[in-house]
This record gives sequence, C-alpha cells and structure tokens, in this order.
Amino acid sequence: MSVGIVGLGVALPKTIRTNEYWDAVVARRSDAHDRGDVLALHRGASGAPNELVPEIVEAIAELGDPVYSGARSRHVLLDEEEVSDLEATAAREAIRDAGIEPSDIDVVLVHSLPSDRLIPSNAPAIQHKCELVRASAWSLDVGCASLQPQLVTASALIRGGVAKHVLCVQSQCGSRVVASDHPQSIGFGDGAAAAVVGAVPEGFGLLGSFMRTDGSLRDGIVLAPVEGRTPVREWWKDGPLGPLRMATFDADIGKLAGQKGPEFCRDTCFEALRDAGLGIDDVSLYLGNQSVGWFVGACRRALGLPRERTFETFAEVGNLGGATVLYNLREALKRDRVHHGDVLLMYSPGAGFTRTAVVMRWWSRGKSI
Amino acid sequence: MSVGIVGLGVALPKTIRTNEYWDAVVARRSDAHDRGDVLALHRGASGAPNELVPEIVEAIAELGDPVYSGARSRHVLLDEEEVSDLEATAAREAIRDAGIEPSDIDVVLVHSLPSDRLIPSNAPAIQHKCELVRASAWSLDVGCASLQPQLVTASALIRGGVAKHVLCVQSQCGSRVVASDHPQSIGFGDGAAAAVVGAVPEGFGLLGSFMRTDGSLRDGIVLAPVEGRTPVREWWKDGPLGPLRMATFDADIGKLAGQKGPEFCRDTCFEALRDAGLGIDDVSLYLGNQSVGWFVGACRRALGLPRERTFETFAEVGNLGGATVLYNLREALKRDRVHHGDVLLMYSPGAGFTRTAVVMRWWSRGKSI
Repeated sequence: MSVGIVGLGVALPKTIRTNEYWDAVVARRSDAHDRGDVLALHRGASGAPNELVPEIVEAIAELGDPVYSGARSRHVLLDEEEVSDLEATAAREAIRDAGIEPSDIDVVLVHSLPSDRLIPSNAPAIQHKCELVRASAWSLDVGCASLQPQLVTASALIRGGVAKHVLCVQSQCGSRVVASDHPQSIGFGDGAAAAVVGAVPEGFGLLGSFMRTDGSLRDGIVLAPVEGRTPVREWWKDGPLGPLRMATFDADIGKLAGQKGPEFCRDTCFEALRDAGLGIDDVSLYLGNQSVGWFVGACRRALGLPRERTFETFAEVGNLGGATVLYNLREALKRDRVHHGDVLLMYSPGAGFTRTAVVMRWWSRGKSI
Repeated sequence: MSVGIVGLGVALPKTIRTNEYWDAVVARRSDAHDRGDVLALHRGASGAPNELVPEIVEAIAELGDPVYSGARSRHVLLDEEEVSDLEATAAREAIRDAGIEPSDIDVVLVHSLPSDRLIPSNAPAIQHKCELVRASAWSLDVGCASLQPQLVTASALIRGGVAKHVLCVQSQCGSRVVASDHPQSIGFGDGAAAAVVGAVPEGFGLLGSFMRTDGSLRDGIVLAPVEGRTPVREWWKDGPLGPLRMATFDADIGKLAGQKGPEFCRDTCFEALRDAGLGIDDVSLYLGNQSVGWFVGACRRALGLPRERTFETFAEVGNLGGATVLYNLREALKRDRVHHGDVLLMYSPGAGFTRTAVVMRWWSRGKSI
C-alpha cells in the first residue's frame, strides 16, 4: 500500500513587514550580537573569527547581501491573532484540496513553534476549529524537523489500518519568540502549512526516509526566560520571569550545528535516497528548510544539485521553520515547478538537534497514471 | 506481526513528602480555592454547588478522607535535578529489561509535563543521556493521555518496518508547575516511566485502541504565566511574567471534563475493547490515570469492574500524569498482579481534552507460550 500527500494548504498572516522596518536594528548590530547569535557563524561566542566551510562561503557570496542576507519581506502575526487560527486555515485548505470532509480525518499531528498556550499543544485547538469530529489530535514535535517524522508516522498509521486520513500541520511564528529589535528577527517570518496524508496509487507517495537526533547539541537553540541578556534555565521558579525568547545556553554549540549544516544535509539526504533505492540524479526537486538566507544554497552545493533543481522562498516569506517545506511545495506546485511523478527530496534540520529527510514521488490527484 | 511492550522501567525522585508538609495549606483551603480549582468538582466557578455523578459520589465516599483524598506520600524533584535525568533512568531500565542495547533503539517518543526546557522537548536529552546512537527522538505529546498514542504509533512504525524497537517515555513532575502552597499540589507526585516496544509472539501485545480529542475543552487546564491569581494568555509579551503554573482559563470547562470522567472512561474503553474484539469480562486488569484520589474508583464503577480487577498507587505516589499507567503496570508486575496472557485495559484522559485507551495481551518475555 502506497501512502502520500493527497491535499495541501498554507496560511500566512496578512500583515507584511519589509526591510525598512529593521533599518535601525541593522544600524545597531554589533560584535556582541554576533557572538551570542547562533545564526551568525562567522564569529564564535568568544569573539574569535570562525572559518566557514566552503559551501557556506559560496552560498553567502552568491546572495551578495551582507545586510539582509537576501530577505525582502515576511508576514507577521498580530497580537490578537492565534497561531492555531493560521494552522486551522491551512488545515481547512488541505482538507478541501484532498476532496474529503473534516469528519474523514482520523489523526492530527501538529508541530507549532510556538503554540498558543505553553500547555496544551495546538492540536486540540485545530481539532476543534476545523470540526474534526472523529479525530484524535496529537503534538508530534521535532522542532523545525517535524514534517518528516509526521509524514512517516502518518504513513505507518495508514498502512497499519489505524487511520485512513492523517492531517499533518506545522507552523512557525518567530515574531512571538524573537524580539523584533534583535538582528536575528530579520530572517524570521510567520506562517503555517498542512498536508492530508492518505492512500495513493502504487509507486507514488513516500519512498524512503532517514532521521537522526544528536542531543549533545540540544543547548544550541532553546526557548527560555531571558533576564537582561541572559537566558535562565529555571523557568519554573517563583519570581517574576523575563520574556520568553528563543535563546541559547551555548552559542558555540548552536554555531557548530550551523557549520555542519551542509554535511548534515548531504548525509541525511543520501541515506534517505538509499532507503528509497534512488540516487541524487533521480531527484526532480529539492525542498528544504530556509533557516537563513544562505541555507538552501549551501545545502544544494553539498548535494551537488544545480539551482534549478531546488526551490525556495526565503526572500518572500523568511524562515518558516517546520512549515517551510510544505509551504514551498505548495508554491512550487502553483508555479509549475512540480509535476506528476516527480521525485521530491525534502530535508529539515531542527533544534534538538534532529535532521530528517524523506523521498517522495509526487502524485497529482486525478491524473491518469 | 504482533507488537507489544518488551521492556519496562520507572523512576521516582528520592525526596518524599508526606501529608504533614501540607497541614498548613489544608487549614487555609477556602471556597475561593475550590471555585478556581478544576479538580474541586463539588463547586462551580460561580461558587454554586455542583451535583456530582453517582460514580464520583460513591468513589469519594469509599475513600473516606475529605482532607487528603487518600493521598499519603509523593516523590518530589529537587531544583538541581533534571526531569530528563528521571526519564533517562526509567529509559535505561526499560532497555535493560528488554535485553537489548541502547543502539538497538530506532525511535524515541517522549511526553514530559513539564520538560526541562520550554523548547526543545526532552526527547534529544533522553537520546543523548541514554546514548541512543541510532535513534531519532521525537516529542509525541497528548498531555496525560500520551501513552496510548505512543504505543499505537510505536506499533505502526514497527509493523511498517520503519523501526524495530521504539522507546516510549512519559513523565510528570507536578512540583515544577503547581505551587506547593496550592491545595491542588497535595495530589501531585513526580515520576517517569518508559517502555520498549517491539515484536512479540502472535496474539500478544496490542489488540485494540480508541482515541478521541474534544478541543472545545482545551481551556480547562493550561500552563500559563500567573499574575496575582490570574493566568495570562499572552505569555509572549515583553514585560516581566508571573510564574508559569498549571492554571485554567475556564474553570467550569475543567470541572465539566472531570464530571464526565466516568462517562468518558466507559465510552473510550468499550470502543477500544470492541476494536480488540473483546468485552469487559475479558479484562484481567484495568490500569488508568489516577488524576485525583477518587478517579480510578469512579472509572471502575463506570466500567462495572470489581476493585480486584483494578490496580492503582495514588496513595503512595500521587498523580503521575502520563507516567501513571506504565508505573502502575510495573508495580502490578512486581506485586504479582499481572501474569502472562492477561488482558490489560489501559485508559488515560489528558488535558486538551483527549481520551485514549488500548487493550493489550501481556507477554512475559521468556515464558513458553
């Protein structure tokens, strides 16, 4: 039994911010910022310069934009909007796109960074807002690497007869957890994406996967109360807490994960291709997280893929975290960059640190095969 | 292919608190506490008395302890201990019990309430601390109802050939999120439990399941910054935050979920039994969450089970949340209350609100069948 994506949906908040919003922030950017910023790889936490791997150096040079790293605009959630509203909009679109009813969804798998409440996850909110009256709604969260575990789990649940249709939902709303006066915030955008997973004709859908966690890197990127400039581990203490922000308990660990980005991508993708019985030359299109402006460029160099066999939207929407790959898949379809039968390679690294890849043969619903 | 639990482990912190610790708290308990406490069902948020369903009335009467509701002791995590240390201890024991190596674990599924960091989940910490060098570590979180989705997912991943051994880990450390001077804290204990899921002989292991979410009840129990006595929705705001505590955005919603406890248990368990092709008379032992002192007593009345076909440990360890069912399974095995071939019915309700049940035929490793 073959299982794959049978419906897709995306949602972005209406409010758009262009680079002008950050002109003052950019002017204030300092070495101290770069030392503590896990996305600023050129300098270590001590202030000493880091030598970057060639794939990253070349990708940065290609961008030719040292100030905004290729970012032009990003969508931003307003205070009165809920993350789960965005997720529910994407989910409803995916269900419509699949040509099924909300009551046909058996299981919902959700990753939100962040969710509307610290507990519970947004899974019950999506179940309720989309009227998924027969569903069991779970958080399946592997940070920005959540899509692939969700697809693999959905596929297993469907093959095992536990579910017929599984709704996978991812969102990232960086504006809620990255202060807008921090240089890092330039690269973040808010958005959500959803896929309905179900049976597809033989030979289509999920062909292979590879997923690995290295928890020794877990302190690189965290959400924590930040007091002054210092993130605090004891978020459960009694006293008043600083604002909850993405931060690092060990900037060099976070920078190391970034430096290893191209290597992790290559190793993970090649293992997933091997699992699928395919090689890199079989890949029609690479879709991957766009954590920073140079990330997809560095990954395609590591994989040996030409630019035309990749697709990204960093300039338009910024880093959408775990929602990136499905968002880009939807955009690539709209722009006629994905066709029936194409082999898609989908790669996501996520804080923790986990790296995940799946290989999928795209089935365009309704096409004769 | 049959899949079931092949190894079990549990861990409790060393520090024990007995009821004396709360004598002053109990003396201060007021109507105002009860109105805002979702576990105090006898009074609504407005202060008006609630009529309780007969199963709950009888279970409370049976306890005969209006002050401590049957609680006697509970284990408490110290500030310098990490939740993931407890989880890793349980996980290592489960791996040893299964007779496998850490490198045999393919996937880790974790639910922690709460986790050591707000993000990422404890999954990478467990991967690292237990040296699970080949594993992909995910948070699969459905609140206190996480065990059953984890078991069903583990089973599907194994049947689908994605994994051979899946490590399922749950923990609850209420002492981190319930203020010790709140009357609710009396019923909470800290602890962790873990299971290795793998292939078992035909006819053993997971036989059936049923899981449903009703997100309209999601505001009943939340983790939120509490300012004065008021939980705040905007945890992402700039200003200093009150301590992060289990709270409610709608106490009557939380109390409603409690009132429906026996009904939810009956409906969920009977559907799971139907899925397994069995009836309530086939159940050797019921294992369920012990959210409050009367909970298991009310559930067994709803199911029509005699006390000797249930097992609980509320008096000894308190409410262990999502870790309760595996902890109790381990204890029941130690006390010779579970035997090879027994049919186990495992039920858990969780904030969100999700209710989950699985039916399992117990396989004692090494026994001839």
